[in-house]
Amino acid sequence: MIRFNCDYSEGAHPLILERLSSTNFEQTAGYGDDPHCQKARELILKECGNPDADIYFLVGGTQTNTTIISAALRPWQGVLSADTGHINVHESGAIEATGHKVLAMPGTDGKISAKQIEEAYKAHYEDETQMHMVQPKMVYISQPTELGTLYSKAELEAISKVCREKGLYLFADGARMGYGLMSEKNDVTLKDMAELCDVFYIGGTKVGALFGEAVVITNNELKKDFPYMIKQKGGLLAKGRLLGIQFEVLFEDGLYYRISSYADKAADIIRQACEKRGLGFLCPSYTNQQFPIMPDTMIKALSEKYSYAEMGRIDENHSAIRFCTSWATKLEDAEALAKDIETIKY
Amino acid sequence: MIRFNCDYSEGAHPLILERLSSTNFEQTAGYGDDPHCQKARELILKECGNPDADIYFLVGGTQTNTTIISAALRPWQGVLSADTGHINVHESGAIEATGHKVLAMPGTDGKISAKQIEEAYKAHYEDETQMHMVQPKMVYISQPTELGTLYSKAELEAISKVCREKGLYLFADGARMGYGLMSEKNDVTLKDMAELCDVFYIGGTKVGALFGEAVVITNNELKKDFPYMIKQKGGLLAKGRLLGIQFEVLFEDGLYYRISSYADKAADIIRQACEKRGLGFLCPSYTNQQFPIMPDTMIKALSEKYSYAEMGRIDENHSAIRFCTSWATKLEDAEALAKDIETIKY
Amino acid sequence: MIRFNCDYSEGAHPLILERLSSTNFEQTAGYGDDPHCQKARELILKECGNPDADIYFLVGGTQTNTTIISAALRPWQGVLSADTGHINVHESGAIEATGHKVLAMPGTDGKISAKQIEEAYKAHYEDETQMHMVQPKMVYISQPTELGTLYSKAELEAISKVCREKGLYLFADGARMGYGLMSEKNDVTLKDMAELCDVFYIGGTKVGALFGEAVVITNNELKKDFPYMIKQKGGLLAKGRLLGIQFEVLFEDGLYYRISSYADKAADIIRQACEKRGLGFLCPSYTNQQFPIMPDTMIKALSEKYSYAEMGRIDENHSAIRFCTSWATKLEDAEALAKDIETIKY
Amino acid sequence: MIRFNCDYSEGAHPLILERLSSTNFEQTAGYGDDPHCQKARELILKECGNPDADIYFLVGGTQTNTTIISAALRPWQGVLSADTGHINVHESGAIEATGHKVLAMPGTDGKISAKQIEEAYKAHYEDETQMHMVQPKMVYISQPTELGTLYSKAELEAISKVCREKGLYLFADGARMGYGLMSEKNDVTLKDMAELCDVFYIGGTKVGALFGEAVVITNNELKKDFPYMIKQKGGLLAKGRLLGIQFEVLFEDGLYYRISSYADKAADIIRQACEKRGLGFLCPSYTNQQFPIMPDTMIKALSEKYSYAEMGRIDENHSAIRFCTSWATKLEDAEALAKDIETIKY
Repeated sequence: MIRFNCDYSEGAHPLILERLSSTNFEQTAGYGDDPHCQKARELILKECGNPDADIYFLVGGTQTNTTIISAALRPWQGVLSADTGHINVHESGAIEATGHKVLAMPGTDGKISAKQIEEAYKAHYEDETQMHMVQPKMVYISQPTELGTLYSKAELEAISKVCREKGLYLFADGARMGYGLMSEKNDVTLKDMAELCDVFYIGGTKVGALFGEAVVITNNELKKDFPYMIKQKGGLLAKGRLLGIQFEVLFEDGLYYRISSYADKAADIIRQACEKRGLGFLCPSYTNQQFPIMPDTMIKALSEKYSYAEMGRIDENHSAIRFCTSWATKLEDAEALAKDIETIKY
Repeated sequence: MIRFNCDYSEGAHPLILERLSSTNFEQTAGYGDDPHCQKARELILKECGNPDADIYFLVGGTQTNTTIISAALRPWQGVLSADTGHINVHESGAIEATGHKVLAMPGTDGKISAKQIEEAYKAHYEDETQMHMVQPKMVYISQPTELGTLYSKAELEAISKVCREKGLYLFADGARMGYGLMSEKNDVTLKDMAELCDVFYIGGTKVGALFGEAVVITNNELKKDFPYMIKQKGGLLAKGRLLGIQFEVLFEDGLYYRISSYADKAADIIRQACEKRGLGFLCPSYTNQQFPIMPDTMIKALSEKYSYAEMGRIDENHSAIRFCTSWATKLEDAEALAKDIETIKY
Repeated sequence: MIRFNCDYSEGAHPLILERLSSTNFEQTAGYGDDPHCQKARELILKECGNPDADIYFLVGGTQTNTTIISAALRPWQGVLSADTGHINVHESGAIEATGHKVLAMPGTDGKISAKQIEEAYKAHYEDETQMHMVQPKMVYISQPTELGTLYSKAELEAISKVCREKGLYLFADGARMGYGLMSEKNDVTLKDMAELCDVFYIGGTKVGALFGEAVVITNNELKKDFPYMIKQKGGLLAKGRLLGIQFEVLFEDGLYYRISSYADKAADIIRQACEKRGLGFLCPSYTNQQFPIMPDTMIKALSEKYSYAEMGRIDENHSAIRFCTSWATKLEDAEALAKDIETIKY
Repeated sequence: MIRFNCDYSEGAHPLILERLSSTNFEQTAGYGDDPHCQKARELILKECGNPDADIYFLVGGTQTNTTIISAALRPWQGVLSADTGHINVHESGAIEATGHKVLAMPGTDGKISAKQIEEAYKAHYEDETQMHMVQPKMVYISQPTELGTLYSKAELEAISKVCREKGLYLFADGARMGYGLMSEKNDVTLKDMAELCDVFYIGGTKVGALFGEAVVITNNELKKDFPYMIKQKGGLLAKGRLLGIQFEVLFEDGLYYRISSYADKAADIIRQACEKRGLGFLCPSYTNQQFPIMPDTMIKALSEKYSYAEMGRIDENHSAIRFCTSWATKLEDAEALAKDIETIKY
């Protein structure tokens, strides 16, 4: 069985393991107060073109989303999100468990628009009974989205503009940021993210690390006392250096970009095969996740050799599935899958 | 500077890193549903002598305490703890953040007694206005305690007995469990823990692992739906295998015990030096943490070569400090510190 | 200005004020442990035909919903609700503030169906990754709904059946229960409610009392320790007798039903006027709330004499509004409004 | 049985009931947006000498404490309180249920000192590992305290000074404020409270009202969006006028002060009787609560005619009990109790 069901089926990029070994006996301070975290912070600040941002390293995505959102909001405030947003669907109610409503809006291919945000803001503040309702205060987007799609720079600028006009925080979940940055369709850089968002994170878990997410906070309002929240939410790793070392390796000479680009190309092979076979897609993705719609019998045939994620039934005879690639995907495996997609009998 | 300030100054035991490397390219399911987690579970169940316990692997101590306690309690219930308990002092209010009061009781050398628990229970239930107060439902102890001391088997049995009579859950925080198990003064086994507690955990972060805590749930009431809580509290590692692999290495041939015993012996060297110098202790510890009371000028002299943790002022001229050892402590470093403690001029 | 904007514009039914005065100097125990609360409980138990139910009196609707829902659910569980449900829209995130997601489903005239509930249940439990999502455990309905509509007995039976089969708690918000019970279209009794629901409440605030909601808990699982939750959520009135006295007056000789019936009839006058004028409705209501759709210019004309609640824009020139009646509505006012609706020029 | 066990055994001062009746048919807006609330606000602002304060009316004490504290604090912050503070003991964990630790400090006769507050602040901020601990941000005091004692103006000034220097909010629970203001030992006015506190409340439930607490917010930081919190925490009474009417009656011509003074004098009769009999006290109270220490046999003898609250065992043969007076206490009852205290055989 060859796994394409997610982008975390293997361990970490070998260079990360090597570095963990070579630094293993160094004695350092705990909780992220070590030279490796410091170095990793500097590297990321440089990529973001913002020397004044605060950088923190957390362990996983749900933890990161929860820590950021609950640190930013007051008890009566909520976070606007696409209905397909990870925080709305796949975090077991983690945001609500900290007391905040996820104000879900219908997404289009996983994205929400500046216009929708402005309308939601107005709907709240133009209502005289606003105090009876949850106050929208933050906008959550994912780049790329849970459906593999990308916000263009123009879209992000429009969202950022409305957020700043209305006093809403803009938070971008970048669990798969690398795959977005290196997509052939992408026109957004980390500098853009740092300029347009109040806080975002650069995912490691799904992009070559053992685990780890690098949070970039650019809005001063969100910086104060953030470490207390990391500790309280269980994200303060005793051996914080493990996170610093990994991001040091990922960003010291562009490894993060190279492995993301590689994965996007492997995904492209699969996408093109689907197109050749005349398959439709749940949504148009040019990142490492592909969401073809297939006859159920075709899926069954493929399932004997490949694993995938189920994305739901489309009609009586068709379903959408997801194939993911990563730094660890073997090109020959992607090509074998592509060939089977093009030719398999069912 | 030689670090004795904590037991997580280095990476992980080299055998763990080796195993992470040798298994790196295996493709496995995520979220702990992989063969390594399965194997580690079997090994731990065997050590605990309870094939029906549920085993889960979480990332760190605060997360583990929070997940267990908030999964067990209803909103109006609280957890009894020594005032020095980690959950009462050093978790940034993580337990309260999930809605539960830590019902702190005066500890003796970090421990509470069966009698105290029974009295707290009665004080609540014999009060007609009980519904105006937080209902005690769980007892939190640490083995060994935050002050390096140990509950004897007889003490644990008495606590367990009162808990079962009164319907209180007994939860033991074993962040440094190994150092307790291997202490020369210890008479408690993992089998005892599994028999006497409703839930406890075996710490990895402070005992040789990169990170990780193995939760053992023996009470059926606490088993239901626990994975939802792990996910919600941010503890469900995508690459869950990382935890399985580490505990597999630690328990497949006794590594966990060997490195704990080694650290206890290194701590013994330091303790004996303190005794020879005629120093008192904050409390009597025979585990990997030592808490000597020293003249401030002596501490200052030692601080030029060694790092330690501050434990508070004792009187105008004396303070308590903490030295920790671990698998990574070099015997020559422990001996150098011991010699300096015995002879340093101040 | 004559107020039809809500059903709580005046104080309380005069009989309630009289009783408060005549009992004012009685000395009683606090917190609901007094003879009036005891009597009121007995009266309500009799109406419900269930001597084993637990009855508690709380102050207001949001408080009651929050207390019941958070007492019933474990941290990873959520409550299914129509998207128009009061808990989803008009409680400032009170449910989320206790840590629980409101799992909103599209309502039809404010109602959800047994089929929707079953599908939501299956969608969760048939998904292998269920632990990544909020577990549905309770169903919240309002009788009558926020849009004045009613569940029929057959609908309630179907919902109750699926809830019991699937282990979901059924909770009915009866903030306006009286108006539903006395509606000409109603076929549901309090006995039915007690038989089909696990918990529900009979509203006083909007049905003649100064304030107060009577909670009826029939499911034993939900009874345990409920008073702790009332206290914690701020609902335990020191002078609990105030609630007992009011419900005693409302239920000792049918006042609750009489004033509800009166209000429904007053609303009928308004509804028939709208129909005569050829107006449409947001939804078909035969209770004390009416939701006509009117030309904006007509609304403007009426607004010079009457107050109403805004229910949102329908199209460029039309909006929906709400008129409410209550025990305090003067028939001559309802008739004046009706006449104006039929004849006003705009 | 004559009740002296609490100060809420009867209904409300008759003038309040009269006003509720005479205003009963007025139509007003809901949720506190009515002329009576407006008038009551003006009266209280005048008493406080601060026209810029925000005034809100809530239903009960636990609700008020919870709403204020959780509105003021960020998730990692806690509230300093005497260990006898109502929020620490008698609110079923309501504060913790909103996520905040009550940082209890040993009280002296129910009071804490400026020095204790300063030390707690320093202990936190001078610790390098502060982010591992709950950050103190608010100070909770009660005036009078739960033990009937009073902060002097000098004590309050000292506390206020340290709070302002350190950026801590000062919050005074005034559930029994009237009894404190009118005590013969008091030198603090409402103007002082408004000047020295960031937020406090003037209790109605225990001082003559049916229910109700008037919150006075003087610190602008605490004003923003407070109504959202009132609604979310279940404190926004639909018929908000009920609160306005009561405080209007209490403050339009000094009724609040007169009934408080009366109750204090009735308590004085009881206190003097205890002194004459040579009894000791749990603490020295010159307000409406008296806490004599009595032989258990004497308590038993008194219990045949009077009810009281138990305050705990003092030694093998003695216990402390509480007698409360209020506007409704009959002088002849207080005198009868006094006489029995002086002469009863046991």
